Amino acid sequence: MKPLTEMAQSSQIFRNVPRMDVLDLISKGSVKEAERGASIHLQGERAHSLFIVLEGWVKLYRMSSCGNEAVVGVLSNGDCFGEAAAVPGEVFSTGAEAVAASKLLQIDAQDLWHAIDSDPVLCRAFLGATLSDNRALVHQLGQLKSHTAAQRIADFLLSLCKDEVGECIVVLPYDKVLIAGWLGMKPESLSRAFRRLEPYGVKIRKDRALIQSVERLLAFADEDPSKSWSEKAWKTS
Amino acid sequence: MKPLTEMAQSSQIFRNVPRMDVLDLISKGSVKEAERGASIHLQGERAHSLFIVLEGWVKLYRMSSCGNEAVVGVLSNGDCFGEAAAVPGEVFSTGAEAVAASKLLQIDAQDLWHAIDSDPVLCRAFLGATLSDNRALVHQLGQLKSHTAAQRIADFLLSLCKDEVGECIVVLPYDKVLIAGWLGMKPESLSRAFRRLEPYGVKIRKDRALIQSVERLLAFADEDPSKSWSEKAWKTS
Repeated sequence: MKPLTEMAQSSQIFRNVPRMDVLDLISKGSVKEAERGASIHLQGERAHSLFIVLEGWVKLYRMSSCGNEAVVGVLSNGDCFGEAAAVPGEVFSTGAEAVAASKLLQIDAQDLWHAIDSDPVLCRAFLGATLSDNRALVHQLGQLKSHTAAQRIADFLLSLCKDEVGECIVVLPYDKVLIAGWLGMKPESLSRAFRRLEPYGVKIRKDRALIQSVERLLAFADEDPSKSWSEKAWKTS
Repeated sequence: MKPLTEMAQSSQIFRNVPRMDVLDLISKGSVKEAERGASIHLQGERAHSLFIVLEGWVKLYRMSSCGNEAVVGVLSNGDCFGEAAAVPGEVFSTGAEAVAASKLLQIDAQDLWHAIDSDPVLCRAFLGATLSDNRALVHQLGQLKSHTAAQRIADFLLSLCKDEVGECIVVLPYDKVLIAGWLGMKPESLSRAFRRLEPYGVKIRKDRALIQSVERLLAFADEDPSKSWSEKAWKTS
Protein backbone atom coordinates (compact mmCIF):
# COMPACT_ATOMS: atom_id res chain seq x y z
CA MET A 1 0.00 0.00 0.00
CA LYS A 2 1.29 3.46 -0.90
CA PRO A 3 2.03 5.87 1.95
CA LEU A 4 -1.15 7.33 3.44
CA THR A 5 -0.53 10.94 2.48
CA GLU A 6 0.20 9.98 -1.11
CA MET A 7 -3.03 7.98 -1.35
CA ALA A 8 -5.14 10.72 0.22
CA GLN A 9 -3.52 13.32 -2.01
CA SER A 10 -4.32 11.36 -5.13
CA SER A 11 -7.96 10.95 -4.06
CA GLN A 12 -10.75 12.37 -6.19
CA ILE A 13 -11.22 15.33 -3.86
CA PHE A 14 -7.61 16.40 -3.35
CA ARG A 15 -6.20 15.49 -6.78
CA ASN A 16 -6.14 19.07 -8.04
CA VAL A 17 -5.12 20.76 -4.80
CA PRO A 18 -1.50 21.86 -4.29
CA ARG A 19 0.34 19.54 -1.88
CA MET A 20 0.97 22.24 0.68
CA ASP A 21 -2.72 23.13 0.91
CA VAL A 22 -3.78 19.64 1.80
CA LEU A 23 -0.96 18.07 3.84
CA ASP A 24 -1.95 19.73 7.09
CA LEU A 25 -5.57 18.63 6.75
CA ILE A 26 -4.62 15.05 5.86
CA SER A 27 -2.24 14.85 8.81
CA LYS A 28 -5.13 15.70 11.16
CA GLY A 29 -7.18 12.76 9.84
CA SER A 30 -7.19 9.30 11.36
CA VAL A 31 -7.21 5.91 9.67
CA LYS A 32 -10.26 3.79 10.41
CA GLU A 33 -10.59 0.10 9.62
CA ALA A 34 -14.04 -1.28 8.89
CA GLU A 35 -15.00 -4.94 8.66
CA ARG A 36 -17.29 -6.13 5.87
CA GLY A 37 -20.83 -5.17 6.90
CA ALA A 38 -19.76 -2.48 9.38
CA SER A 39 -21.79 0.73 9.41
CA ILE A 40 -19.62 3.83 8.87
CA HIS A 41 -22.31 6.45 9.25
CA LEU A 42 -26.10 6.59 9.26
CA GLN A 43 -28.53 8.53 7.08
CA GLY A 44 -29.74 11.59 9.00
CA GLU A 45 -26.79 11.55 11.42
CA ARG A 46 -24.90 14.82 11.98
CA ALA A 47 -22.26 15.08 9.22
CA HIS A 48 -19.31 14.72 11.60
CA SER A 49 -16.58 13.62 9.18
CA LEU A 50 -15.35 13.47 5.62
CA PHE A 51 -14.11 10.03 4.49
CA ILE A 52 -11.67 8.91 1.82
CA VAL A 53 -11.56 5.22 0.83
CA LEU A 54 -7.94 4.03 1.04
CA GLU A 55 -8.75 0.34 0.50
CA GLY A 56 -11.92 -1.75 0.09
CA TRP A 57 -15.49 -1.08 -0.98
CA VAL A 58 -18.15 1.14 0.59
CA LYS A 59 -21.80 1.41 -0.38
CA LEU A 60 -23.91 4.53 0.12
CA TYR A 61 -27.61 3.86 0.55
CA ARG A 62 -30.88 5.58 1.27
CA MET A 63 -33.53 3.98 3.45
CA SER A 64 -37.12 4.76 2.54
CA SER A 65 -39.60 5.24 5.36
CA CYS A 66 -40.85 1.67 4.92
CA GLY A 67 -37.32 0.37 5.43
CA ASN A 68 -36.36 -0.39 1.82
CA GLU A 69 -32.79 0.28 0.87
CA ALA A 70 -31.72 1.97 -2.37
CA VAL A 71 -28.00 1.79 -3.19
CA VAL A 72 -27.01 5.21 -4.56
CA GLY A 73 -23.24 4.79 -4.66
CA VAL A 74 -20.55 2.07 -4.61
CA LEU A 75 -17.12 3.50 -3.84
CA SER A 76 -13.56 2.22 -3.91
CA ASN A 77 -9.96 3.43 -3.61
CA GLY A 78 -9.59 7.18 -3.90
CA ASP A 79 -13.31 7.92 -3.71
CA CYS A 80 -14.61 10.31 -1.15
CA PHE A 81 -17.89 10.50 0.79
CA GLY A 82 -19.46 12.57 3.55
CA GLU A 83 -18.81 15.88 1.74
CA ALA A 84 -21.84 17.26 3.64
CA ALA A 85 -19.36 17.63 6.52
CA ALA A 86 -17.94 20.65 4.68
CA VAL A 87 -20.98 22.71 5.70
CA PRO A 88 -21.68 23.31 9.41
CA GLY A 89 -25.04 21.97 10.62
CA GLU A 90 -25.50 19.45 7.79
CA VAL A 91 -26.58 15.82 8.15
CA PHE A 92 -25.60 12.83 6.01
CA SER A 93 -28.22 12.30 3.30
CA THR A 94 -27.24 8.63 2.95
CA GLY A 95 -25.97 5.83 5.13
CA ALA A 96 -22.50 4.34 4.44
CA GLU A 97 -21.54 0.70 4.98
CA ALA A 98 -18.35 -1.26 4.26
CA VAL A 99 -19.19 -4.04 1.79
CA ALA A 100 -15.68 -5.49 2.03
CA ALA A 101 -12.98 -5.08 4.70
CA SER A 102 -12.01 -1.44 4.18
CA LYS A 103 -9.52 1.19 5.29
CA LEU A 104 -10.68 4.80 5.41
CA LEU A 105 -9.18 8.18 6.17
CA GLN A 106 -11.58 10.04 8.46
CA ILE A 107 -11.28 13.82 8.68
CA ASP A 108 -13.18 15.64 11.41
CA ALA A 109 -15.78 18.19 10.22
CA GLN A 110 -14.34 20.95 12.43
CA ASP A 111 -10.85 20.49 10.96
CA LEU A 112 -12.45 20.59 7.54
CA TRP A 113 -14.36 23.84 8.19
CA HIS A 114 -11.26 25.44 9.56
CA ALA A 115 -9.23 24.39 6.50
CA ILE A 116 -11.92 25.56 4.06
CA ASP A 117 -12.37 28.86 5.87
CA SER A 118 -8.68 29.63 5.91
CA ASP A 119 -7.74 28.39 2.44
CA PRO A 120 -9.72 29.48 -0.65
CA VAL A 121 -7.83 26.92 -2.77
CA LEU A 122 -9.27 24.11 -0.67
CA CYS A 123 -12.75 25.62 -0.83
CA ARG A 124 -12.59 25.72 -4.62
CA ALA A 125 -11.26 22.14 -4.69
CA PHE A 126 -14.25 21.03 -2.64
CA LEU A 127 -16.59 22.91 -4.91
CA GLY A 128 -15.04 21.18 -7.94
CA ALA A 129 -15.29 17.74 -6.32
CA THR A 130 -18.92 18.30 -5.32
CA LEU A 131 -19.80 19.42 -8.86
CA SER A 132 -18.11 16.30 -10.14
CA ASP A 133 -20.24 14.17 -7.76
CA ASN A 134 -23.31 15.95 -9.08
CA ARG A 135 -22.37 15.13 -12.65
CA ALA A 136 -22.04 11.46 -11.72
CA LEU A 137 -25.46 11.52 -10.01
CA VAL A 138 -27.06 13.23 -13.03
CA HIS A 139 -25.47 10.62 -15.30
CA GLN A 140 -26.86 7.84 -13.11
CA LEU A 141 -30.34 9.45 -13.15
CA GLY A 142 -30.21 9.74 -16.93
CA GLN A 143 -29.36 6.03 -17.28
CA LEU A 144 -32.12 5.02 -14.87
CA LYS A 145 -34.73 7.08 -16.67
CA SER A 146 -33.84 6.22 -20.24
CA HIS A 147 -32.34 2.71 -20.20
CA THR A 148 -33.83 -0.75 -19.67
CA ALA A 149 -32.52 -3.00 -16.92
CA ALA A 150 -30.54 -5.07 -19.45
CA GLN A 151 -29.02 -1.89 -20.91
CA ARG A 152 -27.99 -0.72 -17.43
CA ILE A 153 -26.19 -4.02 -16.90
CA ALA A 154 -24.51 -3.59 -20.29
CA ASP A 155 -23.39 -0.09 -19.21
CA PHE A 156 -22.08 -1.53 -15.95
CA LEU A 157 -20.09 -4.29 -17.71
CA LEU A 158 -18.76 -1.80 -20.26
CA SER A 159 -17.55 0.47 -17.43
CA LEU A 160 -15.44 -2.50 -16.24
CA CYS A 161 -13.98 -3.08 -19.74
CA LYS A 162 -12.25 0.32 -19.64
CA ASP A 163 -10.70 0.92 -23.06
CA GLU A 164 -10.68 -2.68 -24.29
CA VAL A 165 -12.05 -3.66 -27.69
CA GLY A 166 -13.14 -7.01 -29.15
CA GLU A 167 -13.37 -9.94 -26.75
CA CYS A 168 -13.03 -9.14 -23.08
CA ILE A 169 -13.35 -10.93 -19.74
CA VAL A 170 -14.15 -8.83 -16.69
CA VAL A 171 -14.32 -9.75 -13.03
CA LEU A 172 -17.50 -8.59 -11.29
CA PRO A 173 -16.08 -6.32 -8.58
CA TYR A 174 -18.62 -7.13 -5.86
CA ASP A 175 -21.43 -9.59 -5.20
CA LYS A 176 -24.56 -9.86 -7.31
CA VAL A 177 -26.92 -8.64 -4.58
CA LEU A 178 -25.00 -5.37 -4.43
CA ILE A 179 -24.79 -5.11 -8.24
CA ALA A 180 -28.58 -5.56 -8.38
CA GLY A 181 -29.12 -2.88 -5.71
CA TRP A 182 -26.77 -0.48 -7.45
CA LEU A 183 -28.55 -0.98 -10.78
CA GLY A 184 -31.95 -0.57 -9.11
CA MET A 185 -33.32 -4.10 -9.47
CA LYS A 186 -34.11 -7.13 -7.35
CA PRO A 187 -31.44 -9.89 -7.32
CA GLU A 188 -33.78 -12.28 -9.20
CA SER A 189 -34.34 -9.64 -11.88
CA LEU A 190 -30.57 -9.35 -12.28
CA SER A 191 -30.27 -13.02 -13.27
CA ARG A 192 -33.07 -12.56 -15.82
CA ALA A 193 -31.41 -9.44 -17.19
CA PHE A 194 -28.05 -11.27 -17.45
CA ARG A 195 -29.80 -13.95 -19.54
CA ARG A 196 -31.25 -11.23 -21.74
CA LEU A 197 -27.68 -10.24 -22.66
CA GLU A 198 -26.81 -13.73 -23.94
CA PRO A 199 -27.97 -13.02 -27.53
CA TYR A 200 -25.60 -10.04 -27.43
CA GLY A 201 -22.64 -12.26 -26.68
CA VAL A 202 -22.41 -11.99 -22.88
CA LYS A 203 -21.98 -15.01 -20.61
CA ILE A 204 -21.79 -14.87 -16.83
CA ARG A 205 -19.68 -17.57 -15.16
CA LYS A 206 -19.53 -17.17 -11.37
CA ASP A 207 -17.86 -13.79 -10.75
CA ARG A 208 -16.77 -13.28 -14.37
CA ALA A 209 -18.47 -11.83 -17.43
CA LEU A 210 -17.27 -13.08 -20.83
CA ILE A 211 -17.98 -10.46 -23.47
CA GLN A 212 -17.64 -11.65 -27.08
CA SER A 213 -17.47 -8.16 -28.53
CA VAL A 214 -17.27 -4.87 -26.65
CA GLU A 215 -18.50 -3.04 -29.79
CA ARG A 216 -21.62 -5.21 -30.05
CA LEU A 217 -22.46 -4.67 -26.35
CA LEU A 218 -21.90 -0.94 -26.76
CA ALA A 219 -24.35 -0.88 -29.67
CA PHE A 220 -26.94 -2.65 -27.50
CA ALA A 221 -26.40 -0.25 -24.58
CA ASP A 222 -26.93 2.71 -26.92
CA GLU A 223 -30.00 1.25 -28.66
CA ASP A 224 -33.30 3.10 -28.42
CA PRO A 225 -35.15 1.25 -25.62
CA SER A 226 -38.53 1.87 -27.30
CA LYS A 227 -37.43 -0.71 -29.89
CA SER A 228 -37.99 -3.30 -27.20
CA TRP A 229 -40.51 -1.48 -25.10
CA SER A 230 -41.81 -4.69 -23.55
CA GLU A 231 -38.58 -4.92 -21.57
CA LYS A 232 -38.53 -1.25 -20.58
CA ALA A 233 -37.49 -0.63 -16.99
CA TRP A 234 -40.34 1.75 -16.35
CA LYS A 235 -43.32 -0.52 -16.83
CA THR A 236 -46.07 0.31 -14.39
CA SER A 237 -48.27 -2.73 -14.75
CA MET B 1 -42.65 41.12 -10.00
CA LYS B 2 -40.20 41.97 -7.20
CA PRO B 3 -37.08 43.98 -8.06
CA LEU B 4 -34.46 41.86 -9.82
CA THR B 5 -31.77 42.12 -7.15
CA GLU B 6 -34.23 41.10 -4.44
CA MET B 7 -35.32 38.04 -6.44
CA ALA B 8 -31.78 36.99 -7.26
CA GLN B 9 -30.74 37.49 -3.66
CA SER B 10 -33.52 35.28 -2.38
CA SER B 11 -32.61 32.51 -4.84
CA GLN B 12 -31.55 29.11 -3.58
CA ILE B 13 -27.88 29.84 -4.25
CA PHE B 14 -27.57 33.32 -2.76
CA ARG B 15 -30.08 33.00 0.09
CA ASN B 16 -27.43 32.62 2.79
CA VAL B 17 -24.87 35.02 1.39
CA PRO B 18 -24.56 38.52 2.92
CA ARG B 19 -26.11 41.17 0.64
CA MET B 20 -22.84 43.01 0.08
CA ASP B 21 -21.08 39.86 -1.14
CA VAL B 22 -23.56 39.19 -3.87
CA LEU B 23 -24.83 42.57 -5.11
CA ASP B 24 -21.83 43.25 -7.33
CA LEU B 25 -22.08 39.83 -9.00
CA ILE B 26 -25.84 40.15 -9.57
CA SER B 27 -25.41 43.62 -11.06
CA LYS B 28 -23.06 42.13 -13.68
CA GLY B 29 -25.72 39.61 -14.78
CA SER B 30 -28.16 40.19 -17.61
CA VAL B 31 -31.83 39.28 -17.82
CA LYS B 32 -32.69 36.83 -20.58
CA GLU B 33 -36.21 36.05 -21.74
CA ALA B 34 -36.92 32.61 -23.17
CA GLU B 35 -40.04 31.52 -25.03
CA ARG B 36 -41.64 28.17 -24.26
CA GLY B 37 -39.56 25.52 -26.03
CA ALA B 38 -36.44 27.70 -26.34
CA SER B 39 -33.11 26.02 -25.70
CA ILE B 40 -31.08 27.78 -22.99
CA HIS B 41 -27.96 25.66 -23.16
CA LEU B 42 -26.94 22.30 -24.59
CA GLN B 43 -25.50 19.21 -22.94
CA GLY B 44 -21.74 19.11 -23.52
CA GLU B 45 -21.52 22.84 -24.30
CA ARG B 46 -18.84 24.88 -22.48
CA ALA B 47 -20.34 25.97 -19.14
CA HIS B 48 -20.38 29.66 -20.04
CA SER B 49 -22.98 30.96 -17.55
CA LEU B 50 -24.80 30.43 -14.31
CA PHE B 51 -28.60 30.92 -14.50
CA ILE B 52 -31.21 31.84 -11.91
CA VAL B 53 -34.90 31.35 -12.78
CA LEU B 54 -36.73 34.63 -12.08
CA GLU B 55 -40.03 33.55 -13.65
CA GLY B 56 -41.29 30.47 -15.54
CA TRP B 57 -40.26 26.82 -15.77
CA VAL B 58 -37.07 25.25 -17.05
CA LYS B 59 -36.35 21.57 -17.58
CA LEU B 60 -32.90 20.02 -17.37
CA TYR B 61 -32.47 16.91 -19.47
CA ARG B 62 -29.88 14.39 -20.57
CA MET B 63 -29.84 12.97 -24.06
CA SER B 64 -28.66 9.38 -24.40
CA SER B 65 -26.53 8.47 -27.40
CA CYS B 66 -29.59 7.06 -29.17
CA GLY B 67 -31.37 10.39 -28.78
CA ASN B 68 -33.69 9.56 -25.88
CA GLU B 69 -34.29 12.32 -23.40
CA ALA B 70 -34.32 11.85 -19.63
CA VAL B 71 -35.67 14.78 -17.60
CA VAL B 72 -33.41 15.16 -14.55
CA GLY B 73 -34.72 18.44 -13.18
CA VAL B 74 -37.73 20.77 -13.41
CA LEU B 75 -36.96 24.22 -12.01
CA SER B 76 -38.96 27.32 -11.16
CA ASN B 77 -38.61 30.71 -9.44
CA GLY B 78 -35.50 31.04 -7.34
CA ASP B 79 -33.89 27.83 -8.61
CA CYS B 80 -30.44 27.92 -10.07
CA PHE B 81 -28.76 25.87 -12.81
CA GLY B 82 -25.47 25.79 -14.67
CA GLU B 83 -23.39 25.65 -11.46
CA ALA B 84 -20.69 23.88 -13.53
CA ALA B 85 -19.82 27.41 -14.68
CA ALA B 86 -18.21 27.93 -11.27
CA VAL B 87 -15.25 25.75 -12.33
CA PRO B 88 -13.08 26.85 -15.29
CA GLY B 89 -13.02 24.39 -18.18
CA GLU B 90 -16.25 22.60 -17.28
CA VAL B 91 -19.07 21.68 -19.65
CA PHE B 92 -22.81 21.48 -18.94
CA SER B 93 -23.73 17.88 -18.04
CA THR B 94 -27.36 18.48 -19.06
CA GLY B 95 -29.28 20.52 -21.59
CA ALA B 96 -31.69 23.23 -20.36
CA GLU B 97 -34.93 24.23 -22.09
CA ALA B 98 -37.70 26.66 -21.15
CA VAL B 99 -40.93 24.69 -20.79
CA ALA B 100 -42.96 27.89 -20.27
CA ALA B 101 -42.19 31.51 -21.15
CA SER B 102 -39.39 32.27 -18.67
CA LYS B 103 -37.21 35.07 -17.38
CA LEU B 104 -33.68 34.21 -16.27
CA LEU B 105 -30.75 35.99 -14.73
CA GLN B 106 -27.63 34.97 -16.66
CA ILE B 107 -24.25 35.46 -14.98
CA ASP B 108 -21.12 35.07 -17.07
CA ALA B 109 -18.69 32.31 -15.97
CA GLN B 110 -15.72 34.69 -15.88
CA ASP B 111 -17.54 37.10 -13.58
CA LEU B 112 -18.42 34.12 -11.43
CA TRP B 113 -14.82 32.82 -11.20
CA HIS B 114 -13.60 36.26 -10.34
CA ALA B 115 -16.21 36.65 -7.58
CA ILE B 116 -15.51 33.16 -6.15
CA ASP B 117 -11.75 33.72 -6.26
CA SER B 118 -11.92 37.02 -4.48
CA ASP B 119 -14.63 36.24 -1.93
CA PRO B 120 -14.40 33.11 0.26
CA VAL B 121 -17.96 33.75 1.53
CA LEU B 122 -19.29 33.32 -2.00
CA CYS B 123 -17.18 30.21 -2.54
CA ARG B 124 -18.64 28.63 0.60
CA ALA B 125 -22.15 29.66 -0.48
CA PHE B 126 -21.62 27.90 -3.79
CA LEU B 127 -20.30 24.85 -2.04
CA GLY B 128 -23.41 24.81 0.19
CA ALA B 129 -25.75 25.20 -2.80
CA THR B 130 -23.96 22.44 -4.74
CA LEU B 131 -24.19 20.09 -1.75
CA SER B 132 -27.87 20.90 -1.53
CA ASP B 133 -28.28 19.97 -5.23
CA ASN B 134 -26.40 16.80 -4.45
CA ARG B 135 -28.89 15.92 -1.68
CA ALA B 136 -31.83 16.51 -4.03
CA LEU B 137 -30.27 14.24 -6.68
CA VAL B 138 -29.59 11.51 -4.12
CA HIS B 139 -33.17 11.79 -2.90
CA GLN B 140 -34.45 11.47 -6.48
CA LEU B 141 -32.22 8.41 -7.06
CA GLY B 142 -33.48 6.81 -3.87
CA GLN B 143 -37.11 7.29 -4.94
CA LEU B 144 -36.42 5.90 -8.42
CA LYS B 145 -34.70 2.83 -7.07
CA SER B 146 -37.08 1.96 -4.26
CA HIS B 147 -40.52 3.22 -5.30
CA THR B 148 -43.06 2.03 -7.87
CA ALA B 149 -44.27 4.38 -10.60
CA ALA B 150 -47.57 4.92 -8.74
CA GLN B 151 -45.68 5.72 -5.52
CA ARG B 152 -43.51 8.24 -7.37
CA ILE B 153 -46.66 9.98 -8.59
CA ALA B 154 -47.99 9.95 -5.02
CA ASP B 155 -44.71 11.55 -3.85
CA PHE B 156 -45.02 14.16 -6.59
CA LEU B 157 -48.64 15.03 -5.66
CA LEU B 158 -47.73 15.15 -1.97
CA SER B 159 -44.89 17.58 -2.71
CA LEU B 160 -47.56 19.90 -4.20
CA CYS B 161 -49.79 19.60 -1.10
CA LYS B 162 -47.15 21.31 1.05
CA ASP B 163 -48.33 21.14 4.68
CA GLU B 164 -52.01 20.48 4.01
CA VAL B 165 -53.90 17.69 5.75
CA GLY B 166 -57.18 15.94 4.95
CA GLU B 167 -58.82 16.74 1.62
CA CYS B 168 -56.73 18.72 -0.82
CA ILE B 169 -56.94 19.92 -4.44
CA VAL B 170 -53.68 20.64 -6.22
CA VAL B 171 -53.03 22.14 -9.63
CA LEU B 172 -50.56 20.14 -11.75
CA PRO B 173 -47.80 22.68 -12.34
CA TYR B 174 -46.86 21.62 -15.87
CA ASP B 175 -48.13 19.36 -18.62
CA LYS B 176 -48.47 15.60 -18.28
CA VAL B 177 -45.76 14.78 -20.84
CA LEU B 178 -43.24 16.66 -18.70
CA ILE B 179 -44.57 15.12 -15.46
CA ALA B 180 -44.14 11.67 -17.04
CA GLY B 181 -40.57 12.52 -18.17
CA TRP B 182 -39.67 13.87 -14.75
CA LEU B 183 -41.01 10.76 -13.01
CA GLY B 184 -39.19 8.50 -15.49
CA MET B 185 -42.15 7.01 -17.38
CA LYS B 186 -43.83 7.19 -20.76
CA PRO B 187 -46.90 9.46 -20.99
CA GLU B 188 -49.21 6.45 -21.50
CA SER B 189 -47.78 4.81 -18.38
CA LEU B 190 -48.55 8.00 -16.42
CA SER B 191 -52.28 7.68 -17.19
CA ARG B 192 -52.22 4.05 -16.03
CA ALA B 193 -50.36 5.02 -12.88
CA PHE B 194 -52.86 7.82 -12.19
CA ARG B 195 -55.67 5.24 -12.41
CA ARG B 196 -53.76 3.04 -9.98
CA LEU B 197 -54.09 5.83 -7.41
CA GLU B 198 -57.91 5.91 -7.63
CA PRO B 199 -58.40 3.27 -4.90
CA TYR B 200 -56.27 5.53 -2.69
CA GLY B 201 -58.67 8.45 -3.13
CA VAL B 202 -56.97 10.36 -5.95
CA LYS B 203 -58.88 11.70 -8.97
CA ILE B 204 -57.30 13.58 -11.87
CA ARG B 205 -59.54 16.12 -13.59
CA LYS B 206 -57.73 17.99 -16.38
CA ASP B 207 -54.88 19.87 -14.68
CA ARG B 208 -56.10 19.23 -11.15
CA ALA B 209 -55.62 16.37 -8.69
CA LEU B 210 -58.35 15.85 -6.08
CA ILE B 211 -56.89 14.11 -3.06
CA GLN B 212 -59.45 12.73 -0.57
CA SER B 213 -56.95 12.33 2.25
CA VAL B 214 -53.34 13.46 2.32
CA GLU B 215 -52.66 11.01 5.19
CA ARG B 216 -53.96 8.04 3.16
CA LEU B 217 -51.84 8.98 0.14
CA LEU B 218 -48.81 9.41 2.39
CA ALA B 219 -49.33 5.90 3.77
CA PHE B 220 -49.45 4.53 0.21
CA ALA B 221 -46.29 6.41 -0.81
CA ASP B 222 -44.46 4.96 2.21
CA GLU B 223 -45.71 1.40 1.71
CA ASP B 224 -43.22 -1.38 1.06
CA PRO B 225 -43.33 -1.81 -2.74
CA SER B 226 -42.64 -5.56 -2.42
CA LYS B 227 -46.21 -5.82 -1.08
CA SER B 228 -47.33 -5.19 -4.63
CA TRP B 229 -44.28 -6.39 -6.47
CA SER B 230 -46.25 -6.96 -9.66
CA GLU B 231 -46.44 -3.20 -10.09
CA LYS B 232 -42.81 -2.58 -9.18
CA ALA B 233 -41.05 -0.02 -11.35
CA TRP B 234 -38.03 -2.22 -11.90
CA LYS B 235 -39.54 -5.17 -13.68
CA THR B 236 -37.21 -6.47 -16.31
CA SER B 237 -39.51 -8.72 -18.25
